[in-house]
Amino acid sequence: MFSILKINTVTGETTKETDNSKEALLGGRTLSSRMVSKEVPAQCDPLGRQNKLFFCSGALAGTTASSCHRLSIGAKSPLTGGIKESNAGGILALRMAHQNLRCIVLEDAPEPDRDWKIVVIGKDKTELVDGSFLEGKGVYEKSDLLTEKFGKRAGCATIGPAAEKRLLASGLACSDPHGVCSRYAGRGGLGAVMASKRIIAMVVLDDAKVKPDYADKDEFKKGARKLITLLQENPVASKFTKYGTAAMVDICQALKVLPTRNFKHGAMDGAEKINAQAMYDTIKERGGEGRTQHACMPGCVIQCSNVYPKKDGTILCSPIEYETMALMGSNLCLTDLDAIAMMNRIANDAGVDTLDCGAAIGVAMEAGLAEFGDAKAAVRMMEEIREATPLGRILGSGVKLTAKILGVSHSPHVLGQALPAYEPRGTKGMAMTYLSTPMGADHTFGFTLRDEEDPTTKEGKVALSKKFQVIGSRMDAMGMCNFARYSVKDDMNPLLDLIKARFDVVITEEEFDDFVRETLRLEHQFNTDAGITAADYRFCESFYQEAQPETGEKIDITDQETAEARSW
Amino acid sequence: MFSILKINTVTGETTKETDNSKEALLGGRTLSSRMVSKEVPAQCDPLGRQNKLFFCSGALAGTTASSCHRLSIGAKSPLTGGIKESNAGGILALRMAHQNLRCIVLEDAPEPDRDWKIVVIGKDKTELVDGSFLEGKGVYEKSDLLTEKFGKRAGCATIGPAAEKRLLASGLACSDPHGVCSRYAGRGGLGAVMASKRIIAMVVLDDAKVKPDYADKDEFKKGARKLITLLQENPVASKFTKYGTAAMVDICQALKVLPTRNFKHGAMDGAEKINAQAMYDTIKERGGEGRTQHACMPGCVIQCSNVYPKKDGTILCSPIEYETMALMGSNLCLTDLDAIAMMNRIANDAGVDTLDCGAAIGVAMEAGLAEFGDAKAAVRMMEEIREATPLGRILGSGVKLTAKILGVSHSPHVLGQALPAYEPRGTKGMAMTYLSTPMGADHTFGFTLRDEEDPTTKEGKVALSKKFQVIGSRMDAMGMCNFARYSVKDDMNPLLDLIKARFDVVITEEEFDDFVRETLRLEHQFNTDAGITAADYRFCESFYQEAQPETGEKIDITDQETAEARSW
Repeated sequence: MFSILKINTVTGETTKETDNSKEALLGGRTLSSRMVSKEVPAQCDPLGRQNKLFFCSGALAGTTASSCHRLSIGAKSPLTGGIKESNAGGILALRMAHQNLRCIVLEDAPEPDRDWKIVVIGKDKTELVDGSFLEGKGVYEKSDLLTEKFGKRAGCATIGPAAEKRLLASGLACSDPHGVCSRYAGRGGLGAVMASKRIIAMVVLDDAKVKPDYADKDEFKKGARKLITLLQENPVASKFTKYGTAAMVDICQALKVLPTRNFKHGAMDGAEKINAQAMYDTIKERGGEGRTQHACMPGCVIQCSNVYPKKDGTILCSPIEYETMALMGSNLCLTDLDAIAMMNRIANDAGVDTLDCGAAIGVAMEAGLAEFGDAKAAVRMMEEIREATPLGRILGSGVKLTAKILGVSHSPHVLGQALPAYEPRGTKGMAMTYLSTPMGADHTFGFTLRDEEDPTTKEGKVALSKKFQVIGSRMDAMGMCNFARYSVKDDMNPLLDLIKARFDVVITEEEFDDFVRETLRLEHQFNTDAGITAADYRFCESFYQEAQPETGEKIDITDQETAEARSW
Repeated sequence: MFSILKINTVTGETTKETDNSKEALLGGRTLSSRMVSKEVPAQCDPLGRQNKLFFCSGALAGTTASSCHRLSIGAKSPLTGGIKESNAGGILALRMAHQNLRCIVLEDAPEPDRDWKIVVIGKDKTELVDGSFLEGKGVYEKSDLLTEKFGKRAGCATIGPAAEKRLLASGLACSDPHGVCSRYAGRGGLGAVMASKRIIAMVVLDDAKVKPDYADKDEFKKGARKLITLLQENPVASKFTKYGTAAMVDICQALKVLPTRNFKHGAMDGAEKINAQAMYDTIKERGGEGRTQHACMPGCVIQCSNVYPKKDGTILCSPIEYETMALMGSNLCLTDLDAIAMMNRIANDAGVDTLDCGAAIGVAMEAGLAEFGDAKAAVRMMEEIREATPLGRILGSGVKLTAKILGVSHSPHVLGQALPAYEPRGTKGMAMTYLSTPMGADHTFGFTLRDEEDPTTKEGKVALSKKFQVIGSRMDAMGMCNFARYSVKDDMNPLLDLIKARFDVVITEEEFDDFVRETLRLEHQFNTDAGITAADYRFCESFYQEAQPETGEKIDITDQETAEARSW
């Protein structure tokens, strides 16, 4: 029923397997993490021949349901040394569904001097074609060249020059509905994994349109409409429709958890200059190509994305998300939206994660390489990443290595992955989540902040984090957008009913959550097998020793508590 | 009986404790590793407040015995993340003995912007004095300034500009009998540990001369003479007297384990241009300050050190050791002794380990930053390390991080410490030793090469490595030079008799080896507690997958075998 296409990146040979399990039905992270667990030796070199790269669509891919086309990309991460699932929006999962593919696997790796290849997957054949014309080019130019060659409607995943140089913070850029590779599976260095296989892009052609064979089309339509209502009625999701994720700036500033000055502080003077309203007003005022509301995938009603224009109205960057505004903004004491947008654009063009690079620049500023607040220096550092100068290579390798190389003790990461935009001393729930995820610090994994009565206390946060670990992981588990989680938080049946109407397969809420928990167990086991221990699930020492000035809080979470939060 | 002086590097407060245990009597690594185990939290930040730096003299320090003044320096290593003992020759252990000190401990750490201080230890007081006049200066100039201020006979340990910048491959330079800080405890980043405490030098003044209170002076004299005979009669030690450790170049070239071209090969065309004879002839021919034979500590009869002169006869570098000739020579395909000597000089002046930097430059050459064999580029890279440019910072952070940042898979290290000068695929005994030591790849730890009937097979190598782990560790365990080990390999009594004559304490061979094995157990336990697992005691994947061309060998040692080799 569900097809898995395996491509050997050395020989170009392909094999197709089918898998009728419920895990394959769910797809997404349920499938990608199982395949990594099963097929990748935990102790292998993430950039070596034994690692594999898995692209998995979700249960409802190809249907008309909203927000269902997230693509889960899995591998062993060169950034964290552990398992990785990073997911992106865009149209690639939809194109995979049109080719009746649940999963694409890139296997093996040639010599590092082999010419770059593009994996091209079409209705009739899959082949490795010459990709050397893309070498060294930025992701924007690569997008143009790919659409020129394969059409605007092809689903693409490509890498930037940073990944070509194997930088550890490099991501995979997936094409959006306009054919621009701007939807990033940014975290964990998956771009470097694809580069290690000498694959510079993967293209799923728009030459097939396998239609979903609905078990009950009417029920599905009814269910899809119900989901839209649920999404539109939910106050959180609907706020994202107007402001995008930027709405978080004010919330975090008020709670004093807005990362500021290399995560030393939790609030920034002038935060209102880079908040949601400021961005909204700027976009509206400049007009032109600017959009405050924008869908990353066809059919999504949340439309949290945006298009930030230059003064002349032409596009500067799309999208700009809260995490970037904090890590490349407040964390560097920048109050200039245009500078943040420019950094974001360079990151997208270089093909690196904005969080990991923003955090690395914060450390570089603490090391004295530039003053906090110096926007020009920050933009220049991003350019160095794109050019892969020695400093650029340092910064593009993520915050943990940057701190080691530059001799800075306060290094905001867990498992080598930069902390997202919630200063953990001020939100012990998010801190617990950062310390509990097998993926390295990740906010989507268990987003407690909205539900913490007193964010500064650790009391009850093991249970709270675990509750939201399940809620957050549910969406990844079936390829839904994380922002749909609020709408089905207390009742997953609207989504499970869609699965029933699509496949005539009944999955109960309980059974579904069993899949979610089993995924977590497998992921943690992979990390343990890879040599990751309790000593790694920690913040750096200064978070425990030095109080955050605005809240007076330190991290007081024990190894025992985090072990409990990781135990399923 | 044995004094331990503890100095708080924030307040300058000192405490003196006494310890009458046999562990304190033995001193050296027996004491340093016990103190690290006991006093340093295994999971602490090596450059944070909880790490401590221990300087331990050995059992016979202060006596007239040959080769007995090695100084064991212990801490948690910022390079490996595990326990570290790195030992150096020179006169510091002797001066400690004259002050009746078995151990000096530097504790705590001030803010990173505190002015640099010098710890000055004299007969009447210990104090922190201003050290800002040393800031940023090379080790040679620091040596001059320290002797100017504290006299040529003071025992000093200082750091180079690399350690001031917290580079992870930075060492501690200890003064030789001429007052030059050229005797390095180079490995494991201990220079960065001292720098993290904002201590730029430690000086033990020559204002006291506590004489050893011999239990039986005549017996001691007799025993000391016997030791000299044993050292002089031993063929290995005596070969080092003429040629220094450079004698290994030909041996390793013949066995095809001479690291060449970033550890991809085991032999180099033109190796004879940098072998012992070539160096001997060059030194003799140039004359002047050149010396083929030179003692690093008073009273040593081995005198393996040398002084390599420039063409005009003035000193270029002292000493040049085999490990450096290989890592900065053959590993980079350099056949120019003057270039190697210049690189060595810059390393000594910058205060970085020659092995770790040589290996890092090898990786940089593989990454395409320079051609193998380009001596000028190699010297320039060393200058970048001294100047702490971004590239210099990368290289000075050791080979593991360099490979990660530059995207090179073949990364010759274990636990982040560069492989010493024996290509492990061609010597499975040394490979086993590299994978067994708690210190990161280290050749002195269990030197099997001379005793491997067939170096390319792993058969019997667990037992052989373990045998030599004990033999090698015996010398560290009591502060003797490692080169004395050959002379007492089969009978430790000549050294144990000296201990008896000195202290009237009987330690049997069996009891002594129990201390050695218990030290290993404690060290491995520290590493386990620090989060180091079996996954870390491995070479990088390519050593297992790609055969070394000259021997056709791969690493075939299993995790189970290395676990056995680490089990005591």
